[in-house]
Amino acid sequence: MESNAKMREAAKTIDALVTPSMLLDREKLQRNIHRLADHARKLGVVLRPHMKTAKSVDVARQTFPDGPGPITVSTIAEAEYFAGHGFRDMTYAVGMSPASAVRAMELCRRTGADLKLLLDTVAQADALADVRKATGVVPSVFIELDCDDHRGGLKPDDPTLVEVADKVVAAGANLVGVLAHAGESYGLSTPDALVKAAENERSATVRAAQILRAHGHACPIVSLGSTPTAHFAENLEGVTELRAGVYMFFDLVQSGVGVCAIDDIAISVLATVIGAKPEKGWVLVDAGWMALSRDRGTANQRVDQGYGVVCDESGRVLDDVVVAQASQEHGILAIRSGSGKSMPELPVGTRIRILPNHACAMAAQHDFYSVVNGESPEIEARWERIRGW
Amino acid sequence: MESNAKMREAAKTIDALVTPSMLLDREKLQRNIHRLADHARKLGVVLRPHMKTAKSVDVARQTFPDGPGPITVSTIAEAEYFAGHGFRDMTYAVGMSPASAVRAMELCRRTGADLKLLLDTVAQADALADVRKATGVVPSVFIELDCDDHRGGLKPDDPTLVEVADKVVAAGANLVGVLAHAGESYGLSTPDALVKAAENERSATVRAAQILRAHGHACPIVSLGSTPTAHFAENLEGVTELRAGVYMFFDLVQSGVGVCAIDDIAISVLATVIGAKPEKGWVLVDAGWMALSRDRGTANQRVDQGYGVVCDESGRVLDDVVVAQASQEHGILAIRSGSGKSMPELPVGTRIRILPNHACAMAAQHDFYSVVNGESPEIEARWERIRGW
Repeated sequence: MESNAKMREAAKTIDALVTPSMLLDREKLQRNIHRLADHARKLGVVLRPHMKTAKSVDVARQTFPDGPGPITVSTIAEAEYFAGHGFRDMTYAVGMSPASAVRAMELCRRTGADLKLLLDTVAQADALADVRKATGVVPSVFIELDCDDHRGGLKPDDPTLVEVADKVVAAGANLVGVLAHAGESYGLSTPDALVKAAENERSATVRAAQILRAHGHACPIVSLGSTPTAHFAENLEGVTELRAGVYMFFDLVQSGVGVCAIDDIAISVLATVIGAKPEKGWVLVDAGWMALSRDRGTANQRVDQGYGVVCDESGRVLDDVVVAQASQEHGILAIRSGSGKSMPELPVGTRIRILPNHACAMAAQHDFYSVVNGESPEIEARWERIRGW
Repeated sequence: MESNAKMREAAKTIDALVTPSMLLDREKLQRNIHRLADHARKLGVVLRPHMKTAKSVDVARQTFPDGPGPITVSTIAEAEYFAGHGFRDMTYAVGMSPASAVRAMELCRRTGADLKLLLDTVAQADALADVRKATGVVPSVFIELDCDDHRGGLKPDDPTLVEVADKVVAAGANLVGVLAHAGESYGLSTPDALVKAAENERSATVRAAQILRAHGHACPIVSLGSTPTAHFAENLEGVTELRAGVYMFFDLVQSGVGVCAIDDIAISVLATVIGAKPEKGWVLVDAGWMALSRDRGTANQRVDQGYGVVCDESGRVLDDVVVAQASQEHGILAIRSGSGKSMPELPVGTRIRILPNHACAMAAQHDFYSVVNGESPEIEARWERIRGW
């Protein structure tokens, strides 16, 4: 026998995979990608997909069949990786520190990439002069906006907005625009509320751009997005680009929000049954939180999906079977409490698939995707992921 | 400038690290290792450390300064890795499937390792005949016990125990003993309750061994352990070996249980301040759940530590500052609710350390340890981790 690593690489069908192992359904991936690309096209905005979920150039290529396009990244390691694969137009959508800004600009100098930075304080803007001096590169900068009290960013009417813009220019950097992320939309669950959140994100972002323009800043890029608001936006007047990441794979949280159906979820973890406690209605599998992540994003939604929804080996949902508990390498399957169903027969050695609460978190626990299609056991491709910072 | 990967490798001091990045305090690690080793010696049992937390041969070498000793592993990938570094006596402490048992025995044949399996059903025992036939290796097998309704395993008085033992022998495999894990002890918080849980784990395990011996099974190894019960066991009569993993690093959950002090926690994540929302009392850092994990193990303890306790760059705890919220690459620091303290000044670019809720989960988010000592910024060594299955 080969080592595990060689076995995984050699697997032609999912039954040859060492479990737990991540699967990616190509057709669902493409359906999800086309859905948002079509929506962005209709709304007249550029789509700048966020690569924090997929972290794979093979997935990125599905979104850009004609060659590298504009992307968003969550780490400078991602930017390095995508620059190495020919991507040039990138936004690092995490607030800069002086050290990360220097690393980003060195990357631009080394690779010819245009990696845009994000900031929301006068101190960060002031630091840009030193960043430019240290690297010889003129930083391109977004000002981060806060449209829903989610995290960082400035409110459009905060006088600091214009002050930061002036300081960016004074530091010799290039102010490319404003950027918002309606992160609170993940907590919503009705179409009305989502449409309103999308319009709120739009109006706050456009308003900030107008204020900056009134103060002499051109503000060419008006960027916003989150997977829920991106799909529910009905009008993006004044906006130039849309960002979203988890939409490529979707997950149970997005299904709970109402952005996708469970059948749209493109990634899962293949696992093997390793035991049972019939008196408790438990079946034990070899996928615990190491394979599924500790994410419990559905815990506060209307339907709590535990650590994930359980499907049979070919991907058909087993009604009301969820991963009720997880330790490091053990998952405990049980019937969702309150459903009157009983546990299906799942003898030791049976294989199942588990759909994730949160695709970004589950995918991060794995180093590669085995690409499958529908119920076929065939592995069409093996796509690597990157990680780290 | 070098690429990020090269920068990380070249870092001689922690201020040269790309953040977020994991630190490991050598002196605390050694103190924790010696504490349990001494306790096991006094109790007259072998210590078989669980490598699921550290996943690093360099850490393993700290526990075995005189050369490879007995270890526990949570994946066959770990077994492969440690076998490659000369470890021979290993227990795979996750219930076997027919496929994982074949892989384990192939590993034994290839490397000369003795990788012991775990099971608790007749079906698994029956499958051993095929495993032996397929690999030409006689499997060594533990029967898993359930001492506290935690997960898998058989109760000592369950008649299936003897049946499974008989089936193991009938399948031509070698029954090496019984194995228990008092996983429910993580939910305790008083010395009395922990002492009782340890004695319960011991008495259940010894009783199972006695029953098996009465039925003609020698049962040479009587194995038990969890970090809380391992430290609170006062008497291990009838037990031959103790297992624990997280004790090497400790974490906030173990501190909440009462097994360690916060000052004993040996790992942390170094992070950088990237913004603030003074009106909300928030400071934003570049360590989110990708660096800290989604583990919220202290949420149900007396003191909820959020996503982690915050220290200054040299490791001194900042009173009542915790990571209150986390998204993928953002952490939000805030004062613990109800403390009357106010947020210390933490300007953009300031570095901090974050102590983990759960060391196993946080460490799994990183590929290496930067080994430091106390408050010194010097990096003494860089130790790699493995991952995957």
